[in-house]
Amino acid sequence: MPDQTAIEEGLDFAPQFGADGLVTAVVTDAKSGDVLMVAHMNKDALSRTIESGEAWYYSRSRKKLWKKGESSGHVQRVVELRVDCDQDALWLKVDPLGPGACHTGRRSCFYRLVPLGQTGAVALEFREAEKAFDPRAVYGKP
Amino acid sequence: MPDQTAIEEGLDFAPQFGADGLVTAVVTDAKSGDVLMVAHMNKDALSRTIESGEAWYYSRSRKKLWKKGESSGHVQRVVELRVDCDQDALWLKVDPLGPGACHTGRRSCFYRLVPLGQTGAVALEFREAEKAFDPRAVYGKP
Repeated sequence: MPDQTAIEEGLDFAPQFGADGLVTAVVTDAKSGDVLMVAHMNKDALSRTIESGEAWYYSRSRKKLWKKGESSGHVQRVVELRVDCDQDALWLKVDPLGPGACHTGRRSCFYRLVPLGQTGAVALEFREAEKAFDPRAVYGKP
Repeated sequence: MPDQTAIEEGLDFAPQFGADGLVTAVVTDAKSGDVLMVAHMNKDALSRTIESGEAWYYSRSRKKLWKKGESSGHVQRVVELRVDCDQDALWLKVDPLGPGACHTGRRSCFYRLVPLGQTGAVALEFREAEKAFDPRAVYGKP
């Protein structure tokens, strides 16, 4: 059982990886402040990010370590890294090299709005429908 | 198996709750753009948030639904709600009523910096050491 006071008020970096070995990483654009994506890091991805100053993640779908930009060239330079109170979430402010952080081709993964003030089924609204790059050309997939 | 194209490119809001019944919620200050906290929502918390325009979450530690501010009075008015490409993460831009989002008394949960460019043990640096409110007074706990 970790010491909660040490985790919250101390200076020892002690990331609290979950049962799946991961912490949540929120990625914002250092200039605009927009949230670009939410990803996950295992211990290795986090160490590589800290050492290199470029963002590495762990893909839950592909079950592998990946460097952001390894396929697309859209590397994320980390301008600042923060950890939250209970050390199970990280905030990366990044300088994105390339037009988009999202595998769908958009600048941000959060390109759709959820309207408020209603009950029942909700219809989303696009806020960034246009693609910043062509994912088929960048990733070479159909 | 959900249809990935419908999830990513469609207008049907179909949040992809994990095996634990939760989606990740990133909360930013609508004015400053700073990330205030990372929380989680179950279906009920999400419905209440959409209906009321005020943030509800699910506490993994206390295993219960909670309305942000129910103890502290620091309600979060949701200015805008977004969903990400694969619909397993939400971004809430909020207008926080009250001085702080963090249970430790800080404005943001991300009050410590992780320095980059090093290997081995990492010493954190406070960026917001001072408390915006006294959690003992607000939560009535020692």
